[in-house]
Amino acid sequence: MLNFVYNVPTKVFFGKDQELKIGQILKDYGINRVLLHYGKDSIKKSGLYDKIVAKLKENDIFFIELGGVHANPELDLVLKGVKLCKENNIELVLAVGGGSVIDSSKAIALGAKVDFSPWKFSIKEETPKDRIFVGTILTISAAGSDMSDSCVITNTDTGEKRGFSSDFNRPLFSILNPELTYSVSKYQTACGIVDIMMHTLERYISLGEPTEITDNIAIGLLKTVYDYGKIAIEDPKNYDARANLMWANSLSHNSLTGLGRKYFMSVHQMEHELSGMYTDIAHGAGLAVLWPGWAMKVYKAAPERFLRLSYEVIGIKPSNDKNKDIEDGIKAIRKFFNEIGMPDTLRQLNVKEDTLKELAWNAMFKGKRTLDDIVCVDYDLALEILRSVY
Amino acid sequence: MLNFVYNVPTKVFFGKDQELKIGQILKDYGINRVLLHYGKDSIKKSGLYDKIVAKLKENDIFFIELGGVHANPELDLVLKGVKLCKENNIELVLAVGGGSVIDSSKAIALGAKVDFSPWKFSIKEETPKDRIFVGTILTISAAGSDMSDSCVITNTDTGEKRGFSSDFNRPLFSILNPELTYSVSKYQTACGIVDIMMHTLERYISLGEPTEITDNIAIGLLKTVYDYGKIAIEDPKNYDARANLMWANSLSHNSLTGLGRKYFMSVHQMEHELSGMYTDIAHGAGLAVLWPGWAMKVYKAAPERFLRLSYEVIGIKPSNDKNKDIEDGIKAIRKFFNEIGMPDTLRQLNVKEDTLKELAWNAMFKGKRTLDDIVCVDYDLALEILRSVY
Repeated sequence: MLNFVYNVPTKVFFGKDQELKIGQILKDYGINRVLLHYGKDSIKKSGLYDKIVAKLKENDIFFIELGGVHANPELDLVLKGVKLCKENNIELVLAVGGGSVIDSSKAIALGAKVDFSPWKFSIKEETPKDRIFVGTILTISAAGSDMSDSCVITNTDTGEKRGFSSDFNRPLFSILNPELTYSVSKYQTACGIVDIMMHTLERYISLGEPTEITDNIAIGLLKTVYDYGKIAIEDPKNYDARANLMWANSLSHNSLTGLGRKYFMSVHQMEHELSGMYTDIAHGAGLAVLWPGWAMKVYKAAPERFLRLSYEVIGIKPSNDKNKDIEDGIKAIRKFFNEIGMPDTLRQLNVKEDTLKELAWNAMFKGKRTLDDIVCVDYDLALEILRSVY
Repeated sequence: MLNFVYNVPTKVFFGKDQELKIGQILKDYGINRVLLHYGKDSIKKSGLYDKIVAKLKENDIFFIELGGVHANPELDLVLKGVKLCKENNIELVLAVGGGSVIDSSKAIALGAKVDFSPWKFSIKEETPKDRIFVGTILTISAAGSDMSDSCVITNTDTGEKRGFSSDFNRPLFSILNPELTYSVSKYQTACGIVDIMMHTLERYISLGEPTEITDNIAIGLLKTVYDYGKIAIEDPKNYDARANLMWANSLSHNSLTGLGRKYFMSVHQMEHELSGMYTDIAHGAGLAVLWPGWAMKVYKAAPERFLRLSYEVIGIKPSNDKNKDIEDGIKAIRKFFNEIGMPDTLRQLNVKEDTLKELAWNAMFKGKRTLDDIVCVDYDLALEILRSVY
């Protein structure tokens, strides 16, 4: 087991009606000035917006608001948020939404404390040293940004989508009410299921020393999502399904399922290029297409890990042919993604075939890196993977 | 899944040589005045004491010290620590040792902020509202106090051992170097293994709603300890075994394995009376004797949970007789405890038969409570359990 630092101070309020505590929670932290940050109008239609505003007013909390976060949160809006925070002495960005809103909030919270663009953190020109706080009210189980140290932002000027990690990205608190995800569409629910599984799959499938405790937790989490995923799709108001997915969303990306391991998450990196170029592609849908393609090309580098996946998560019965058992597991995952409504080719995502080379090239940061996962994914292999799932 | 609050802000530095960072860690937190708190001379013999003192001096950190914590940490020493902290404006109690030293430190840290005895927290006459900080350097994998919100103290005047929970009991940071546990005796290692398993077993075996994600994590953690326990006993310097046990120690008692469930931990309660009356009984040894006795009397109230334990942790092959499968699982756990060197009767712990009634009576707080677990354990059942393992 490799050395690690585990630092997940985010306080989680999990369960029914927890969002109604927002006023009291802010008061308990001594926070009086808030930027209410959200995406489209869905939180207004659902009534959540009104509930939150009422609680803020009830507790005499000053707030200004900034809506309009897109599925891939954009730097332009982040910069607007930064300006608002500075002008109004904001103490906390309250993200009401999913991973995009939370990531936008994280970037704003960092930007509020510096006199340069927070994009410099994204491209690793600068390292965060401070932030105002972020609190979240999560409305979709997917990215796990509610407890994570990561933040992914898109710069529409350059067409780049970049993620970076910092302990300053951990929210102060997160409110997770599974009922708030009842109204998430089947498609978005499915995208979230894929994203959750990928966060743990990419940590779990990595080379290196044995980490049984981390692996057992990872397998247990994957099994939970695999078991409850279809239930949530078929019965959107099933509380247990939504609750298990929501907590899995948080744990899959808060560090827990990769502790003691070195991992790279190269499929995530490739997908960032995909949804960076095609901004209407949902991150989860991109991952659903790419992961099986990647897995089929690389599994021989880590067969034991793929085997546990096949046997313990998917329930494949062991045969005499381990490669077949692994491939059956990967195919079952692809089938599962399909059954919950995900595409299984890039073509279905309206990706143009003549952009595959550019996608592969971008994933290499235009020749500046390779994706050093269990197999080193270079330009050629990236292109091969993209073509295999076109 | 029941509503829950998850709040585990303790920063963990896990792995080889992490204790050498102690000076820098304190500096990074801006802490300059420390009470160095420990047990017997083992940390001096091992050289750990000298290493820590050197790092404190190197970083100009003022410290005073208080050794002498016993296996069941006593109120008298806590009160001495409180006095020292107040007289010296101490900012952090640095616990170097196991659960007893950490719990003693937690009580001191609370006591340092009030003008009454912290025993009032133990007997729930007062609720903590503040504390000075606690940091830990763990030397034995067992109690999980390094991330937990609980604190167990013994009052030798009244013969009472009482535990209580508060978020103010969570350490600021914990340094977990598995190598520091290489020198732990086989007996103490085994006691720790039992304690770790019990923390999760008692959370896992509880009634109520389905919590698949929590259960899967619990099962994965139990399997880890079951798999690595014997290895750590047979090969004390096996890093992977010590590392897996150490991280299991933390996760088993930091809340994670019981989230969304209501649990009571009645075996822990009974054991506290046992090692409260017989202060030379190690907590883990007491648990090893009591749990199988308890389990055999109550399993019919939660058969599905015991079955998963038998099948997934112990590896029992399903037969046509589920009760038999469960009993085989419980027997296997008792056998496992025995094989790692634990007693399996109270007699072996030198408990006098004529004190069983008093033990049962004390576990009921002398008639003031029952232990409302999956089965309500009243005086009669408690006595029956004690007799079944005498």
